[in-house]
Amino acid sequence: MNNHTSVPVGVLGASGYVGQELMRLLAGHPGATVAFATAESAAGEWIEGRRLIRADDAPFAEAEIVLSALPHGVSARYVHEARAGGSRAIDLSADFRLSPDAVYGLTEFTRPRLSDAELVANPGCYPTAALLALIPLARLGLIDASREIIVDAASGVTGAGRNPKRELLFGEVSEDFRAYAAGNTHRHLAELRQSLSREGGFTGDLVFTPHLLPVKRGILETIHVPLTRVLDQATAEGLYAATYDGEPCIHVMHGALPSLKDVVYRNRVALGVVPVADVRRPRLTVIAAIDNLVKGAAGQAIQNMNVMLGLPETAGLVC
Amino acid sequence: MNNHTSVPVGVLGASGYVGQELMRLLAGHPGATVAFATAESAAGEWIEGRRLIRADDAPFAEAEIVLSALPHGVSARYVHEARAGGSRAIDLSADFRLSPDAVYGLTEFTRPRLSDAELVANPGCYPTAALLALIPLARLGLIDASREIIVDAASGVTGAGRNPKRELLFGEVSEDFRAYAAGNTHRHLAELRQSLSREGGFTGDLVFTPHLLPVKRGILETIHVPLTRVLDQATAEGLYAATYDGEPCIHVMHGALPSLKDVVYRNRVALGVVPVADVRRPRLTVIAAIDNLVKGAAGQAIQNMNVMLGLPETAGLVC
Amino acid sequence: MNNHTSVPVGVLGASGYVGQELMRLLAGHPGATVAFATAESAAGEWIEGRRLIRADDAPFAEAEIVLSALPHGVSARYVHEARAGGSRAIDLSADFRLSPDAVYGLTEFTRPRLSDAELVANPGCYPTAALLALIPLARLGLIDASREIIVDAASGVTGAGRNPKRELLFGEVSEDFRAYAAGNTHRHLAELRQSLSREGGFTGDLVFTPHLLPVKRGILETIHVPLTRVLDQATAEGLYAATYDGEPCIHVMHGALPSLKDVVYRNRVALGVVPVADVRRPRLTVIAAIDNLVKGAAGQAIQNMNVMLGLPETAGLVC
Amino acid sequence: MNNHTSVPVGVLGASGYVGQELMRLLAGHPGATVAFATAESAAGEWIEGRRLIRADDAPFAEAEIVLSALPHGVSARYVHEARAGGSRAIDLSADFRLSPDAVYGLTEFTRPRLSDAELVANPGCYPTAALLALIPLARLGLIDASREIIVDAASGVTGAGRNPKRELLFGEVSEDFRAYAAGNTHRHLAELRQSLSREGGFTGDLVFTPHLLPVKRGILETIHVPLTRVLDQATAEGLYAATYDGEPCIHVMHGALPSLKDVVYRNRVALGVVPVADVRRPRLTVIAAIDNLVKGAAGQAIQNMNVMLGLPETAGLVC
Repeated sequence: MNNHTSVPVGVLGASGYVGQELMRLLAGHPGATVAFATAESAAGEWIEGRRLIRADDAPFAEAEIVLSALPHGVSARYVHEARAGGSRAIDLSADFRLSPDAVYGLTEFTRPRLSDAELVANPGCYPTAALLALIPLARLGLIDASREIIVDAASGVTGAGRNPKRELLFGEVSEDFRAYAAGNTHRHLAELRQSLSREGGFTGDLVFTPHLLPVKRGILETIHVPLTRVLDQATAEGLYAATYDGEPCIHVMHGALPSLKDVVYRNRVALGVVPVADVRRPRLTVIAAIDNLVKGAAGQAIQNMNVMLGLPETAGLVC
Repeated sequence: MNNHTSVPVGVLGASGYVGQELMRLLAGHPGATVAFATAESAAGEWIEGRRLIRADDAPFAEAEIVLSALPHGVSARYVHEARAGGSRAIDLSADFRLSPDAVYGLTEFTRPRLSDAELVANPGCYPTAALLALIPLARLGLIDASREIIVDAASGVTGAGRNPKRELLFGEVSEDFRAYAAGNTHRHLAELRQSLSREGGFTGDLVFTPHLLPVKRGILETIHVPLTRVLDQATAEGLYAATYDGEPCIHVMHGALPSLKDVVYRNRVALGVVPVADVRRPRLTVIAAIDNLVKGAAGQAIQNMNVMLGLPETAGLVC
Repeated sequence: MNNHTSVPVGVLGASGYVGQELMRLLAGHPGATVAFATAESAAGEWIEGRRLIRADDAPFAEAEIVLSALPHGVSARYVHEARAGGSRAIDLSADFRLSPDAVYGLTEFTRPRLSDAELVANPGCYPTAALLALIPLARLGLIDASREIIVDAASGVTGAGRNPKRELLFGEVSEDFRAYAAGNTHRHLAELRQSLSREGGFTGDLVFTPHLLPVKRGILETIHVPLTRVLDQATAEGLYAATYDGEPCIHVMHGALPSLKDVVYRNRVALGVVPVADVRRPRLTVIAAIDNLVKGAAGQAIQNMNVMLGLPETAGLVC
Repeated sequence: MNNHTSVPVGVLGASGYVGQELMRLLAGHPGATVAFATAESAAGEWIEGRRLIRADDAPFAEAEIVLSALPHGVSARYVHEARAGGSRAIDLSADFRLSPDAVYGLTEFTRPRLSDAELVANPGCYPTAALLALIPLARLGLIDASREIIVDAASGVTGAGRNPKRELLFGEVSEDFRAYAAGNTHRHLAELRQSLSREGGFTGDLVFTPHLLPVKRGILETIHVPLTRVLDQATAEGLYAATYDGEPCIHVMHGALPSLKDVVYRNRVALGVVPVADVRRPRLTVIAAIDNLVKGAAGQAIQNMNVMLGLPETAGLVC
């Protein structure tokens, strides 16, 4: 048990947007202490009062658990190194999300497997929102698999990382809005399909189209669900409320739809539903909002870490 | 013929965002002159070098054509007054869009009826983009009416008007994003359905969900079209290019998707398509972008006016 | 002493931007509980899990201390009512800032007078930043009173309140920037002059020009100080560091200048200095940044409240 | 004379923000045609219907005049090459602004020297606004040289160019505001001082502090001028109106101060003044606004080109 001591935590990739958010959240965490924090080009700089070292110099043995916000493709190597050094690990990249060696850290649905997990793959930001919106309906067999689920998702630019790219300049993004990776070509899709099948039993078709919003943080997903039977507003809200009863980080709205301002800086998924009028077959529109850096990344990682360590699940988090 | 003289134009409601855009475009129009411009609370103020008068004081007899950017519900009365005074009229409100007494001014499809029209109902901003994206596919029988068309649309805040409302304050809108009028409750839906049926012959189901973007101007619509047969990228682009061959204000993209920056301050619809991978039945995603104040309102009104007056169709417009 | 109990706090005007921030901070405060929270048009709505009542229905007797975020001119009446009911009070409006009956709550300089204060006037947002930047130099006689201090200040729009006004619409503010109340006509000027004289002994001339920034929160002040003698960078930074040694909410930067991102969501003033090259007489440019809603309003009020109640000064605050 | 033919113009560096603006303005210019347009990494891309070639491949002999928007330090070489090929040239970089070989293209004050100029140095964006605000007062001996002029300037991010830098990412700039190059270290200062001396005869001290605004385009300068005698509002406005009588691109405001929205997308300087109250010695605050890409760069270059070619001065420009 870790109740009375502060757990030493290593942070890999602390200078990106997700890494900075990990540092911010750990700075206010009552049961964890940053043992080391790494960066490459920003090595030597200070974040939240701690000097960044290079990942190759990380003293893995000093950390009980390592959180990696390294880029996809780079993260796996250091996570293996951390585990070889005796640490448990949470990987926030995509490197282990499709791997059977890691527990998928969608806290609300995989909680029982997290306590003893040595390696947790933290879900992607887009899948987190979509899965928490869809699994309740899928488990109840309410999704008509003969029609496609349509997910239109819009994300703030911190979701695209902090490396300088022309397309992410303020001069390009401000006053703009665009789709990208349309036509089901986004790399999060396999993760979304796998978990929707595994946790929700849904194997039907799905169309996922992400968009880039001129905001810093936040994801809103407008999810069009074909239903097997009519659901009125109260019934639909009731289903979600029942599924998520007691969940501290899920906020089911009643008679209202969430917007980004309901979730930014919080480790919260906000969900709202509305039945669709004037269509021949039953349909539900579900709106899911999260902060891509919190519940979509660093916050959910802390939530998973708390479960792994036996700490209160929302320690250090505002839900 | 009006080729060698400057046509006197009256503008009703010149102080709102659409009215200001009409004034800006008319200031640069080579064949038109503002005969009068009205406003209510802003009467007495100056826009583009012209002093605003109250609509009740408008000298309708001095205008050959009147453009009304008055609010829905208010516009009809003054349009009738203008016509009683002998003017032709273009109404930019929703007041005549469902009326058989007006020609629907979706220029590219109703051009022949505009030349002699006495009263033109200028299309709504959302329907303009959706119709120009969907009619080509609908006319060719390519839309599978057994599945629903899903239109997710996002608009800049000028689409919501210039009257002070808390929900439109910078402090509320900046860094936010939200859906509104979800569940097929937006007033533009009847207009969209009517024209898609009349011009495209499509009477199947449609789900329309508008969103409010933290930008000043621009609409992007992500339109999910169930197809009756597979279309590859080149074929789909070819269909649009053929339909809009020679149209100066339609910009069909090749191998790319439009964003707001392709269309703002232009009287242009930009269209891009992408076939959807990994679904069992054929689907096309169509992205349509317009400037809500230009091709979505004031610009299309000028385009219609030019046709009505026998002027070059793009006079005073940048397409 | 209030160390082991939770102090009941009343909040007047909880639905404006400052009021919402008070509610957010009190929700996370370890030693305070909201006894009641009021609003007028928003009465009946919920903020941070609490239902808003009308100020006229406020049970003042239930609060040990009342924080008023009511508008200038309205606040005084309710503050008097609260005190008549036995509460201590902190007024965040301008109503008592020039009054000898209230202690001016610029915590770092008036701390000793706060412990026993019955009524505290919380400083304005602009004066807070300017005073914390200028008092250290003024006390040391380093400001050349024969030349004017120039303060150019820029504030996010939440500083202008949450009432709907056209000039504060997103469509007006986004992509814009403007000065207002130029020529020394801003109402904060008397407050700034009074405190700069009282705390710093400076009675020379000062030019204050506020600007409206297209951001939600944050104030940056660029302060041009004529000096009586040359100060190099290290010496100037050293003076500030010495003055504010041990102050948890003052962040003196070394070799860098603060920006809004250094301070938003924190109860912090960040200060940076740079000597001016290529001028005949010595000059220092001082940059001060605060979050107008936190150290500029709600956060400083909580800081003052903590001092008044004998709680740890930064309880419930992130500095 | 070039009245009846279209002048062939070469554009160097057409893919940056200034270059794009040149292309946009030339596309609408009635008396000029783009002969060639160059870019380096963007060579092969299309802008305004023209394919970009590499500068080393530019057919300089085909252009009557060459406009260079190449970076500082790179531009001079290609401008020399263009002139060696027989073209006249306008350099929009800083490379010739301090050189006696070029005519400084501050159109309103150096117009007579432009007609025969072979090489024109287009002014920097910050100096353009400051000079047009200060020269009228300086020429009349109204500036008290014993006190410093303070110029606080704020610019949109397109002023910092289109090369990807972390500090210019949307995720860094949005919701932020900061000073840079404080303490009189900005490279525009020498240019500003030289022209203020040459055109206005002012050689006193000046403090210039630029800031980065979270907007795409626009510069606002708040200029604090110590006066030799008191000027009331009407007198001050009258002085500016008299100086700029008949100037199409200078907009002197009466009883109001300019904001960015008064100038963006226009080749205009908007000027407003306000006397400073409550100071012992006379002072005037002057606010100057321009679009950094138009009157601050591409627009002023076109204005200069028009003068050089004997075309109407505002051809192709909206002032």
